[in-house]
Amino acid sequence: MDSRQGHPEPDSESPPVAASSPRSPKLKASSKLNRWSMARALRSGVKIIDRPINAPHRQATTEESDRKTSAVDGDDVAAGKSIYLVSDGTGWTAEHSVNAALGQFEDRLVNRGCSVNTHLFSWVEDEEKLLEIINQAAKQKAMCFYTLANPSMSKSAKEACDQLGVLSVDILGPIIEGIASHLGVSPSGLTRGAPGRVKTLNDAYFKRIEAIEFTIKQDDGTLPENLGKADIILVGVSRTGKTPLSTYIAQKGYKVANVPFVMGVEPPKTLFEVEPRKVFALTIQLVVLQAIRRTRAKTLGVDTEGENRYSGFDLVRKELDFASKIYEKNPGWAVIGNNNNSYVTNKAIEETAAVILRLYHDSSDSSTSVPCISKRF
Amino acid sequence: MDSRQGHPEPDSESPPVAASSPRSPKLKASSKLNRWSMARALRSGVKIIDRPINAPHRQATTEESDRKTSAVDGDDVAAGKSIYLVSDGTGWTAEHSVNAALGQFEDRLVNRGCSVNTHLFSWVEDEEKLLEIINQAAKQKAMCFYTLANPSMSKSAKEACDQLGVLSVDILGPIIEGIASHLGVSPSGLTRGAPGRVKTLNDAYFKRIEAIEFTIKQDDGTLPENLGKADIILVGVSRTGKTPLSTYIAQKGYKVANVPFVMGVEPPKTLFEVEPRKVFALTIQLVVLQAIRRTRAKTLGVDTEGENRYSGFDLVRKELDFASKIYEKNPGWAVIGNNNNSYVTNKAIEETAAVILRLYHDSSDSSTSVPCISKRF
Repeated sequence: MDSRQGHPEPDSESPPVAASSPRSPKLKASSKLNRWSMARALRSGVKIIDRPINAPHRQATTEESDRKTSAVDGDDVAAGKSIYLVSDGTGWTAEHSVNAALGQFEDRLVNRGCSVNTHLFSWVEDEEKLLEIINQAAKQKAMCFYTLANPSMSKSAKEACDQLGVLSVDILGPIIEGIASHLGVSPSGLTRGAPGRVKTLNDAYFKRIEAIEFTIKQDDGTLPENLGKADIILVGVSRTGKTPLSTYIAQKGYKVANVPFVMGVEPPKTLFEVEPRKVFALTIQLVVLQAIRRTRAKTLGVDTEGENRYSGFDLVRKELDFASKIYEKNPGWAVIGNNNNSYVTNKAIEETAAVILRLYHDSSDSSTSVPCISKRF
Repeated sequence: MDSRQGHPEPDSESPPVAASSPRSPKLKASSKLNRWSMARALRSGVKIIDRPINAPHRQATTEESDRKTSAVDGDDVAAGKSIYLVSDGTGWTAEHSVNAALGQFEDRLVNRGCSVNTHLFSWVEDEEKLLEIINQAAKQKAMCFYTLANPSMSKSAKEACDQLGVLSVDILGPIIEGIASHLGVSPSGLTRGAPGRVKTLNDAYFKRIEAIEFTIKQDDGTLPENLGKADIILVGVSRTGKTPLSTYIAQKGYKVANVPFVMGVEPPKTLFEVEPRKVFALTIQLVVLQAIRRTRAKTLGVDTEGENRYSGFDLVRKELDFASKIYEKNPGWAVIGNNNNSYVTNKAIEETAAVILRLYHDSSDSSTSVPCISKRF
């Protein structure tokens, strides 16, 4: 989902926004409203027949064949559909939200070979640059998501998109409005880069840095004497995803240690002295682990023939059995992956992290009827 | 911003949702609409006088003083206002978006001591649990953000919130609708945990794992012979944030190496053999670095007296000078922090990462008029 690709070619002859008229006169407000009502129908469960992807755009390109067209003009099947993400800050909110929403179309994207290109524009803090980007979106027949803290910028974005027939969605606006209404406080309207924003070098910042550094130092079973200082300890055989999971969870401010379970090697004594609720035992389906290890061995160029090799069926099975037996002796540990809830198997890092953190908070305070992760700002 | 706190006490006598009537009869649709129009007015730049935070809620609690109230009922100044985040997946999209939006209220939250409590409910995949949570939100006078892929679940959430007078915002719905409309394809409506979702063990997954593991192995200047294999190399003196930045960027699928610049120690030769556009030189204001190092020294308990100590003004200045001289000799490196754009100084990890990645993509392909980060899905 995160393979990078080059930028599309710009149209060097693009007219300035102020002087430009919409390149797609067919995309008027009424047509846009139709598209929106169709989308609403889709969401409410009405099934529609998928229209051929890109067809209208290909037609438009043909109509314009007498004009100079560059790679950014229109879409073709190879280039895919474009989505613009425009932010006056880092752009990570737009990227994160749109990535999550794209998960709703993965069958189309992954299995049917249709592609979507996202273009993330960050630190867009002046109107001129904003309009240049929206103008380019119009030419590329892209849609536009934006997160703009400054109300006049988000108003400009909406107006320019409407005028140029660019389908647009304000991601942050409704959330800010909701919170403003709930708190009865005006939002600051300040972008992340604005001098008036509160400085980030606070206790939480230092705590997070400390968590990340702790986690890196503890990786792969190093410094077992420090296990008691960890918030969360991950255990499991090689290739159950301990390292990526540890660093992901550390970014959220938790000190994570991970301890590899290696066939026939006794885990460190300190592991059995920590509170069991802090220990998360990762497990995984035999065939999946074998496939992962085969890929890993290929990368390292180390796998040898024979049944005792790293990705060999027999060794993998024995190692999983070895780990299972230790898990059984420690019923206070949460086993992530058993009972057909194979959380580690085929799950992305974020998903396993979410499962672990919910269990962690649940066990540290189970006073709510539905477990949740609570934070104070 | 990420200090954790315990869960509020549940009201064990809470009636089931189906039988319950709104606990706050004043919060009817009309009043909710008023709050919304106020929020819109706020966003459009109209200044309103902030009403005393929590005042209406305190009043409500007084009115109900003959009833059993627990910590979740109503708000008080110490407990702060509550925001519920409800997701049928990990909940990270809701958390990320709401955290970003809360940045618009940080003056109120940080400087005036008013607090907001967020409660993240993940993997809410059945209606019963959903209604239980919304019922609890109503009792706690919380507002509710939700990301629910299943259209019938998101419809239920909206209806239950409206019925119980809970202010609610659908975060993912408008984004999914926008993309569906743009692509002309129906969303799957499948939650992350649904069996029909495409498996995540694809090339991008392995690439990301590899990036994270590479980055951890290269941390703090280890294995300089591998610098050529890195996508991005961060250099800088101690405490400029190389390690947290490296792991954050690695999560996005880039192999990152970092090389510390230590006073009087020659950096590895291989650093000067890599493409300069891959090297990002971190710098920081003298006083800020000194403050960070003082905190660090306190944590480690290592700082000694005298001018040559780790956080001493003289050593810090000399180290920054030492680094600057190397930067000057390598004009192809992007210096992050100079020219009053002190990106590292007082910036959160995400912000510096966004600056670096934009420059990285800009320099790897500068064919668009406005630089952006492009990806293909």
